[in-house]
Amino acid sequence: MANDASTVFDLVILGGGSGGYAAALRGAQLGLDVALIEKNKVGGTCLHNGCIPTKALLHAGEIADQARESAEFGVKASFEGIDIAAVHKYKDGVISGLYKGLQGLIASRKVTYVEGEGRLSSPTSVDVNGQRYEGRHILLATGSVPKSLPGLEIDGNRVISSDHALTLDRVPESAIVLGGGVIGVEFASAWKSFGTDVTIVEALPNLVPVEDVNSSKLLERAFRKRGIKFSVGSRFSGVEYTANGVKVSLENGKTFEAELLLVAVGRGPVSQGLGYEEAGVAMDRGYVLVDEYMRTNVPTVSAVGDLVPTLQLAHVGFAEGILVAERLAGLQTVPIDYDGVPRVTYCHPEVASVGITEEKAKELYGADKVVALKYNLGGNGKSRILKTTGEIKLVQVRDGAVVGVHMVGDRMGEQVGEAQLIYNWEALPAEVAQLIHAHPTQNEALGEAHLALAGKPLHSHD
Amino acid sequence: MANDASTVFDLVILGGGSGGYAAALRGAQLGLDVALIEKNKVGGTCLHNGCIPTKALLHAGEIADQARESAEFGVKASFEGIDIAAVHKYKDGVISGLYKGLQGLIASRKVTYVEGEGRLSSPTSVDVNGQRYEGRHILLATGSVPKSLPGLEIDGNRVISSDHALTLDRVPESAIVLGGGVIGVEFASAWKSFGTDVTIVEALPNLVPVEDVNSSKLLERAFRKRGIKFSVGSRFSGVEYTANGVKVSLENGKTFEAELLLVAVGRGPVSQGLGYEEAGVAMDRGYVLVDEYMRTNVPTVSAVGDLVPTLQLAHVGFAEGILVAERLAGLQTVPIDYDGVPRVTYCHPEVASVGITEEKAKELYGADKVVALKYNLGGNGKSRILKTTGEIKLVQVRDGAVVGVHMVGDRMGEQVGEAQLIYNWEALPAEVAQLIHAHPTQNEALGEAHLALAGKPLHSHD
Repeated sequence: MANDASTVFDLVILGGGSGGYAAALRGAQLGLDVALIEKNKVGGTCLHNGCIPTKALLHAGEIADQARESAEFGVKASFEGIDIAAVHKYKDGVISGLYKGLQGLIASRKVTYVEGEGRLSSPTSVDVNGQRYEGRHILLATGSVPKSLPGLEIDGNRVISSDHALTLDRVPESAIVLGGGVIGVEFASAWKSFGTDVTIVEALPNLVPVEDVNSSKLLERAFRKRGIKFSVGSRFSGVEYTANGVKVSLENGKTFEAELLLVAVGRGPVSQGLGYEEAGVAMDRGYVLVDEYMRTNVPTVSAVGDLVPTLQLAHVGFAEGILVAERLAGLQTVPIDYDGVPRVTYCHPEVASVGITEEKAKELYGADKVVALKYNLGGNGKSRILKTTGEIKLVQVRDGAVVGVHMVGDRMGEQVGEAQLIYNWEALPAEVAQLIHAHPTQNEALGEAHLALAGKPLHSHD
Repeated sequence: MANDASTVFDLVILGGGSGGYAAALRGAQLGLDVALIEKNKVGGTCLHNGCIPTKALLHAGEIADQARESAEFGVKASFEGIDIAAVHKYKDGVISGLYKGLQGLIASRKVTYVEGEGRLSSPTSVDVNGQRYEGRHILLATGSVPKSLPGLEIDGNRVISSDHALTLDRVPESAIVLGGGVIGVEFASAWKSFGTDVTIVEALPNLVPVEDVNSSKLLERAFRKRGIKFSVGSRFSGVEYTANGVKVSLENGKTFEAELLLVAVGRGPVSQGLGYEEAGVAMDRGYVLVDEYMRTNVPTVSAVGDLVPTLQLAHVGFAEGILVAERLAGLQTVPIDYDGVPRVTYCHPEVASVGITEEKAKELYGADKVVALKYNLGGNGKSRILKTTGEIKLVQVRDGAVVGVHMVGDRMGEQVGEAQLIYNWEALPAEVAQLIHAHPTQNEALGEAHLALAGKPLHSHD
């Protein structure tokens, strides 16, 4: 192994996804000498195989749905189908524009960028392309890949992962989506918009099971209305090939047939064979364990992003990466309040939340100390204009701050910014209610919900 | 005049638009005995002739534009035209749904609703339908109507107001819009989406001239790209009929011809012949003058909404109406900070702002004390997915709070909720930057802008 002894970086980062590149950019900005090692393309899962491409598919789906429903708005347009090659071209255009921008940023911040498959060779070095990169500190940020279930083999053809789904060369006639979490419902939503006959299979009792149960119920109602079928509460037991597709069986004896099966049961950490154990890094089921400052048990090694057992979200990766860079640069850092991280599921309708669920609030504060209020988007002018339905549910500690905001409705994901400030700045309902929101926006619904929670409903009943 | 001497209301409200009905609903909720008098339909201009119908037209326009541009997203759809009768049906459906809801609220709060044309008959009474309604307090909320210019006669056919434009039975081939303020650019935008050849004429140097000049410039660029023509900086001098339409002349000698002229030079107060002067209410150019608690010079008379010389926005009316009701009910009230009221222009692309412009900030704080930062939506993934462009501009007092947020881009109006909290809660950029925003939302752009302003840009250059 060649050893470029002349350079010891302040920070060597293994993995150029959201967590890794955020640490690199912030570290370089703070004067650290940073090496960023990525085996594929900087931007990682989020930019190339996750957030960005799925949202492009979902927006193409929105365009398709609006063309189908155009007559309801007085617009004469006919929907003729999906040109999947053109969808991919659009999606890839979005990715390449952002990729180019990110490459420019990395270059302008003078980060040493290394393309190649790295391996932790000691608590202070990473080997890549036959070269050793020494660092006073190492950040592990190798991310995640789609998981499967024991015995369920992903063949990339009839049984596929989200990676395959993102580059599928056709709109499937029918599809079974195994998993009703974020990834599953987003693909189900996009495919349904494209014309696929979709069935979701979720073992837990609800779709988007980590959300407040009210959001799950609203999404289920909306999906039912859209003709997206789903089975909840029974586990997958097996899949077999049929003449033209697959047949999926559940433990309750039900079976479903379709052209293909998308396995969307979550993403698991990429941590095997990378030298982590050998360097003494403590792990659990493949995740690298960290404290609230993203430190592993090895003093010179930190870890961030999907590799660690926190929320698997790109912006969590950003926040964790920034935290590590600032800590290493000697700035004062504050642990992330993961409940205060906004969460958006970009299906049609969208589901968005920040803070805790009503159930969780009752556990924490006692059932009699928790107030919940629901505001129906039927009273919101802009939502009626968009012909979307849904609710905003607020969870409050009695006479205290708003501790949960849970929203369902098209475009409601964009309201999570105000919701995030309300939660994180521990606002009382009256403090939000005092500020009259813009009419007629969907944002106004957030204002109305707080007016109602503050005991002074304007456009809703007492 | 019959005098129902048995009832003296706590509050008699003349006008059932946004300001009037908000005062009625809040007053009744606080235990006041309220009479609400409206000559037409409760909901007023906003619901029936303003905010709501224009936004429905604009959304129909969005659907049309997206059908036209569907191939760019991989969707095969053909745009065949506008069915204007169906557009009106859609628009009227939105209005009637909200109208029904509002009527239900008024009824449930036990407001005495009187349909008829009222007149202030004394500082403590309003006459309507031959009946006198006595009140311990009177609230004037008679709103506004479209204005014209001296000598410019609105014939309702070739020279029309926004009221006519909202019920026009055809999509005009071509139109001249006189006035580049909110109303003018919204109609210009909707009509262009419908296929009209549009020219805007604005006497001031920019479109949306009350916005930060950066927003004006961005909107002008976007309109130019859309093929919406405009002339700024020269005043209207006259209009004459041609064989098939109108010919408009400007003071600089330029002329424009089109099928019709929409006069969108603003809205003026409805205050003549209603007994205001006779009751001794101080007025200025038709506006009823009020202090910061919405009190006129007559102790028993208050006024709110478009009738008073504050911002002509429905949500300003709501806030003013609520303030009056709470004051009369004996609650502690706080004057409205009008700079802190969010403002949205719903054209394509949208323009939204809260706080003050950079120019105003420099006047108030000194040029060297003001920092401005622009974040380009080109760096925002969701905006790229939507194929919209624009910017967020932040205005900050050096080392202090954010005092202005100015945004341009499709759907950016929905970001004004978070912007409003930032302005009104006097947030420092670092306090917003600390909270990582959801990826990939447009909301994230607001977070990125604050990261950059706080000196720690993530997805933008230093």
